[in-house]
Amino acid sequence: MSTLLDSYIESNRDRFLEELKAFLSIPSVSTLPAHRPDIERACDFIITKLRDAGMERVERIASDGHPLVYAEWLRAPGKPTVLCYGHYDVQPPDPLNEWVSPPFEPTIRDSNIFARGAADDKGQMYIHVKAAELLLKMQGSLPVNLKFIIEGEEEVGSGAVDKYVRENSPKLSANVVLVSDTEMFAPGLPTLCVGLRGLIYTEVIATGAAQDLHSGLFGGAAPNPLTALSRIISQLVSPEHHVLIPGFYDDVEPPAPAEKESWKRLPFDEQHFLDKQIGAPSLIGEPGYSVLERIWARPTLEVHGIVGGFMGEGAKTVIPARAAAKISMRLVPRQKPDTIMAAFQQYVERLAPAGMRVQVRVLSSGEPVLMKPEHPYIRAAAEALSETFGKQTVFVRGGGSIPIVSRFQETLKAPVVLMGFGLPDDRLHSPNEKFHLPNFFNGIRAVARFWGKLPTAE
Amino acid sequence: MSTLLDSYIESNRDRFLEELKAFLSIPSVSTLPAHRPDIERACDFIITKLRDAGMERVERIASDGHPLVYAEWLRAPGKPTVLCYGHYDVQPPDPLNEWVSPPFEPTIRDSNIFARGAADDKGQMYIHVKAAELLLKMQGSLPVNLKFIIEGEEEVGSGAVDKYVRENSPKLSANVVLVSDTEMFAPGLPTLCVGLRGLIYTEVIATGAAQDLHSGLFGGAAPNPLTALSRIISQLVSPEHHVLIPGFYDDVEPPAPAEKESWKRLPFDEQHFLDKQIGAPSLIGEPGYSVLERIWARPTLEVHGIVGGFMGEGAKTVIPARAAAKISMRLVPRQKPDTIMAAFQQYVERLAPAGMRVQVRVLSSGEPVLMKPEHPYIRAAAEALSETFGKQTVFVRGGGSIPIVSRFQETLKAPVVLMGFGLPDDRLHSPNEKFHLPNFFNGIRAVARFWGKLPTAE
Repeated sequence: MSTLLDSYIESNRDRFLEELKAFLSIPSVSTLPAHRPDIERACDFIITKLRDAGMERVERIASDGHPLVYAEWLRAPGKPTVLCYGHYDVQPPDPLNEWVSPPFEPTIRDSNIFARGAADDKGQMYIHVKAAELLLKMQGSLPVNLKFIIEGEEEVGSGAVDKYVRENSPKLSANVVLVSDTEMFAPGLPTLCVGLRGLIYTEVIATGAAQDLHSGLFGGAAPNPLTALSRIISQLVSPEHHVLIPGFYDDVEPPAPAEKESWKRLPFDEQHFLDKQIGAPSLIGEPGYSVLERIWARPTLEVHGIVGGFMGEGAKTVIPARAAAKISMRLVPRQKPDTIMAAFQQYVERLAPAGMRVQVRVLSSGEPVLMKPEHPYIRAAAEALSETFGKQTVFVRGGGSIPIVSRFQETLKAPVVLMGFGLPDDRLHSPNEKFHLPNFFNGIRAVARFWGKLPTAE
Repeated sequence: MSTLLDSYIESNRDRFLEELKAFLSIPSVSTLPAHRPDIERACDFIITKLRDAGMERVERIASDGHPLVYAEWLRAPGKPTVLCYGHYDVQPPDPLNEWVSPPFEPTIRDSNIFARGAADDKGQMYIHVKAAELLLKMQGSLPVNLKFIIEGEEEVGSGAVDKYVRENSPKLSANVVLVSDTEMFAPGLPTLCVGLRGLIYTEVIATGAAQDLHSGLFGGAAPNPLTALSRIISQLVSPEHHVLIPGFYDDVEPPAPAEKESWKRLPFDEQHFLDKQIGAPSLIGEPGYSVLERIWARPTLEVHGIVGGFMGEGAKTVIPARAAAKISMRLVPRQKPDTIMAAFQQYVERLAPAGMRVQVRVLSSGEPVLMKPEHPYIRAAAEALSETFGKQTVFVRGGGSIPIVSRFQETLKAPVVLMGFGLPDDRLHSPNEKFHLPNFFNGIRAVARFWGKLPTAE
């Protein structure tokens, strides 16, 4: 199998690269209305390539936003069904003058292809398409039933795909979802991301007076919403970074000892993380937890902005009538967004000082995600990666939240395999985004192997 | 004297009104560059009227901003010197559609003249000009030496006049400064404002990471400047509204028992103040102090805005690299801005949490102002007001700060008489600003009487 894979890839290497370049040349920036025609072109490109690969029922699905692409190949009765997810839209390329080569003129330097979207996510999602082509052309069939759902709004909130998944769960039903939109922990180190934190994003609104007041004329007798919010926030998190909401940690499931132990063996350099990725005087966090535990396996509460009063240059002596704090909580496995939200709301309202009305509004919420490394599908993915990269696969988590992954988990009730081929220095969302080409070709090998290793559906 | 005053005013009543209308017709909005020609016209108007009144050495003083006007009459050797201050600039009139009559077409309804600047400060400062004219025309002399300094930038920070006072204190030297730019506590109730709070306006800047961070990827390990500022702010003021800066209250001089006692007799309705002027669920403030004490005689600390992170609509999961809180303190007599500032800075830096750099920047500061009601000049002013209005003069304070008053006090070392003729419902800075015409004419009487009553300079 390995030799067959390699020889197909070798003989099609140049064509694969030309196709990837063509795909990366389309400036499908989802947030800019001027790029709508490019969105259409990118969508059409994927449709053509899925058809060329031999996928069936390839559909362009119109939405209120950008179109989705669906495709399937369901001729493997008794075999598990895999749903591949990816996105063809990209971030804006600004600032343009910091790019060494133009963002939509893909250029290869030192085995990397530089272009906006190279790693996020065009290069990675194209791995799935080429793996399907390879097996269908080589063998005339796939070892699994395969479905694709590809969207064009990942960088602007995934609105259309979220709705489509909710409304079409029978059509999209699968035994496992495959997503390649994450990164390897280090170059050459095969990595599966088995956990993501959930998210509750809220706005806490404090209202005092009926209108903005002059702090000279009223200061000392009128309630100040900014002082009130500050006092509330200071009671949400302790100076040791524990969240103080009653019951907040009740359902937290600590990582399994083996998982926690494996994190200690990861090539993680705390000083490098501080210096190169954060740049603050020091790291902070809950005592008794490693840095990786703090960002992967511990729930947190952060303030993102406080809106109200005078926010310009210079001085204005206003006591604002109203101020709002944007506060989010990252959740870890077994914490329930609804339970946490209720506890948060109750606690915040209890903290409201005299003279002040305090309201809590939820802007969004998503469940945490966790796959057990011993799950048979995760094991299949790990083996496929290990064989391809010649190293033992490591299991990591992500501190962030990928809403569509929560959506797949919640709606399709299927485990999600986060098999990412990006590298930590791929500069997603920044100038000079790149994708490491050996990872592109190894990705095709690994994905094809993964499908082949999937145990028959239970 | 009283009869003479009255008869001069009576026979010139219509002309005085026409002049006031002409002055109010000039849209001398200092903040809008398009109104620069109107600023010049308003300045010229005052120069002409000061000359017509019989004032001498009337000067138009160019500045980096809008011109100042100076005038003097110094032919009363051995008599005290009074410096009259006022401003000819006005606030913008927006929103225009809320005005019953257009803001620069002065209109009389129910004994009030409606126009932008009617009370703030054209109508009030014109009282000084007409009082000078009246005495010079009637008697050929004044009972005091008189100086005028009039500015055109009060609504935009008084930059030029502040510089001019600092650089020309011998020229402006006086035994007492007269300012009519405040209000009477209630209609018909003659009022002297004998105290103003001082102000220190600061910016507290907290810096964590070198750039904005994603709260999913870094939350739990990276310092959050907004949480840090909230914690600092919550330690600046107690839930009982005491300022917690060490030494903050050390130099506070409580109001004299007689002054405090007199405040209890003022027609002040707490419920009305809450409902009509604030509109919050309740008043707040330090226990053990009346509302008037809280806003007049107690120092306070207020937060005016917190800048940093995401301040738009919706959700963004950023941990900002940097955030800044705009924080001011109102000071009361005997508190020294420099001492308080040093204590504030030291305390805030001590509160800086780990992982965070915290800096304090002063944007402006001004001393509190207090005149003893028993000061001979204040007594003269009180008598003049009592005789004119037929009621005993009340002594109040202002919770706000008038920077130029602090400047006069600090640089000229002269007491400042704040003899205001505005009314609480004059709607300064709002649509339908007005000035009560009986107060205009009584103001002229009261000011002329005040000058006549001033004891010979020590």
